[in-house]
Amino acid sequence: MITVEEATRLMQATATPVPVVAVPLTEAAGRVLREPLRADRDFPPFDRVTMDGIALRFEALRGGRRTFAVAGVQHAGAVPIPLGEGDGCLEVMTGTVLPPGTDTVIRYEDLSFTDRNGGRYAEVTAAPEAAGQNVHRQGSDRRAGDQLLAPGRLLSPPDVGVAASVGRSSLNVSRALTLAVVSTGDELVDVDQLPLPHQIRRSNAYALAAALGQAGARSQLYHLRDDPQQLETELRMILAGADGLVLSGGVSMGKADFVPAVLEALGVQKHFHTVAQKPGKPLWFGTSAEGKAVFALPGNPVSTMLCAIRYVLPWLRTGAQQTPEPPGRAVLTETISFAPPLTYFLPVQTFPGADGRRMGRPRPGGGSGDLANLTEADAFVELPAERKVFEAGEAFPIWKFRWSEF
Amino acid sequence: MITVEEATRLMQATATPVPVVAVPLTEAAGRVLREPLRADRDFPPFDRVTMDGIALRFEALRGGRRTFAVAGVQHAGAVPIPLGEGDGCLEVMTGTVLPPGTDTVIRYEDLSFTDRNGGRYAEVTAAPEAAGQNVHRQGSDRRAGDQLLAPGRLLSPPDVGVAASVGRSSLNVSRALTLAVVSTGDELVDVDQLPLPHQIRRSNAYALAAALGQAGARSQLYHLRDDPQQLETELRMILAGADGLVLSGGVSMGKADFVPAVLEALGVQKHFHTVAQKPGKPLWFGTSAEGKAVFALPGNPVSTMLCAIRYVLPWLRTGAQQTPEPPGRAVLTETISFAPPLTYFLPVQTFPGADGRRMGRPRPGGGSGDLANLTEADAFVELPAERKVFEAGEAFPIWKFRWSEF
Repeated sequence: MITVEEATRLMQATATPVPVVAVPLTEAAGRVLREPLRADRDFPPFDRVTMDGIALRFEALRGGRRTFAVAGVQHAGAVPIPLGEGDGCLEVMTGTVLPPGTDTVIRYEDLSFTDRNGGRYAEVTAAPEAAGQNVHRQGSDRRAGDQLLAPGRLLSPPDVGVAASVGRSSLNVSRALTLAVVSTGDELVDVDQLPLPHQIRRSNAYALAAALGQAGARSQLYHLRDDPQQLETELRMILAGADGLVLSGGVSMGKADFVPAVLEALGVQKHFHTVAQKPGKPLWFGTSAEGKAVFALPGNPVSTMLCAIRYVLPWLRTGAQQTPEPPGRAVLTETISFAPPLTYFLPVQTFPGADGRRMGRPRPGGGSGDLANLTEADAFVELPAERKVFEAGEAFPIWKFRWSEF
Repeated sequence: MITVEEATRLMQATATPVPVVAVPLTEAAGRVLREPLRADRDFPPFDRVTMDGIALRFEALRGGRRTFAVAGVQHAGAVPIPLGEGDGCLEVMTGTVLPPGTDTVIRYEDLSFTDRNGGRYAEVTAAPEAAGQNVHRQGSDRRAGDQLLAPGRLLSPPDVGVAASVGRSSLNVSRALTLAVVSTGDELVDVDQLPLPHQIRRSNAYALAAALGQAGARSQLYHLRDDPQQLETELRMILAGADGLVLSGGVSMGKADFVPAVLEALGVQKHFHTVAQKPGKPLWFGTSAEGKAVFALPGNPVSTMLCAIRYVLPWLRTGAQQTPEPPGRAVLTETISFAPPLTYFLPVQTFPGADGRRMGRPRPGGGSGDLANLTEADAFVELPAERKVFEAGEAFPIWKFRWSEF
């Protein structure tokens, strides 16, 4: 039996970078960028007007002039009109180039206009103290050539906008892996069957596919019987057709727990079996001769979910080369005692405290078979093996399995 | 000009429930459930063995017996074998029905086995103190008929597993809305064009589509010129073919800001125009005669993103009938002064503090045109209009625009 830390280390060591694929910009959100994104021009690319109003020379304002003849209108998207000699001004719209010969923009809110003798005049009712008002200077945000996004970025909506602004209609991202998700267990019937009194319906494969999707992986779902010969034949084919394998069930000490022996017969090299943790102790992990990862998760549904969230998703993110984030933390709302020398993954319901802390209310539930209990929680809090008492008010790392806005 | 709170209230009042559709269970994660999900059987549906080992009568153990003849093996999925009279036991596997006539399970770790005279015998090396060990009692988690998930639930991986376990191969969820996303602005060229020196590329529509997707909406992308006649003709058709409209640009005070007048000409009833906030003051909102929502967002890209995250996504979630969550909060790492009587949405980079607090490091950037600045932030912190100084260490509500694990 190894520690959670050692299991993590052994598993992460096998997460080699997945191939790069190009995707259209409209499908890039939520994918992991695999190239540096650079500015092709300055940001902004010109001295940019930031308010609707007039552009003028500040020198004239400083000289005491308040009324300016409007020499024209500069629309966004039109070729810039230079301001000629004299003390005129140009009406300018947000997003236009600052007209050559001007240095300051006065917004409409600080102007009044009069039309007389066929001419239009702007009077400045609130003059700025210095030049440069309402002008977003060329290159003040970023310079041409600057790196805007680093490889490893999980692309978010503003990132997609930034990519568009530098002319990228497609982006190089990590290929989505396709994992075979295989449940075992002769007590299981399919979701649309009526179970006999001693049977239950398959649920792990569906929950696993949903979880793996959170890290961008696609799933192929299978169910196999607890029969070593059939397992070996089917798993050989399934593994050949997928990027990796996630099993649930069949890894404990029972008489029908054939999975470890079958995997070794298939040439899958075992990296570890059993981890000092609760739930999920019988976790098994190996790699095939071609280097494909094989995760054999315990079949109790809470164990399955914990192992997917705590091990498989981080492994997927590393393979996708996603830049690691610091782990989130939550503050226990009550003191928890747990004596065994195991890392305890306790379900908690997190909620935001008024002081900015993330609180975690323990939801221990009925143990590793109590899947329904996870509907009242949104994360596992990781309580270290070397301690027995975890005080209310202490913060510990969390592993979320539910989307939330906060 | 109205307050942020009033704008929110007026907008939310128009968010009528979207229709219900059935989706296959494999596509249900991330959707909003629109029916109560109930247990069809007890959870667990029988007294369930939770460890591999032997099942016996505790009474025999209490009487001092430690060695038990193994009368058979109870496999998961097999019809239960009752334990006959006498002091025998049955080998049992995790997930099986507790054999009739037994009440306690001893795990393999606390047993040793011997085979003699053609029989198999289990010796208990560590006896429990009471009956019921390693048995998950029928109905101890949930009772048949109990509600497992309430309508409004954003379906997460364990929820999908729970739905499978009660036999639901499809679920009733909120239909995904299709929104037309229309950018305007004659200075804009498409992403695969080389802009002239006074032009820039379209970015808002792509960023908006990615943001709307976070609340489950699909987007149709359009770009229209700053021409009132063309805007009116095209917007009429676009609105007819979508569930709602999200515009960016053309809502400020400029000479080419035709959007509000065009929308009113199309019979879209204005609910408000301009909100006491920075960025995003020119925000316009209305509804068509058929009740379709029309969001006309300011075109500066940071304003566009803020208005989408702060207003459009919550509106989508309300329409989808998603159960509201308490807003997240972050703690300012430095004191911020902001004098105007406006709600200030300040970009921040959040990160987890060691004490369980979510910290927010201000990233004010170069203003509402500085989209690149948002690559260094992951949320806007909402600083109320009635205050001018916001102290380091104070927590304020946040609006996230970037996925994160914590």
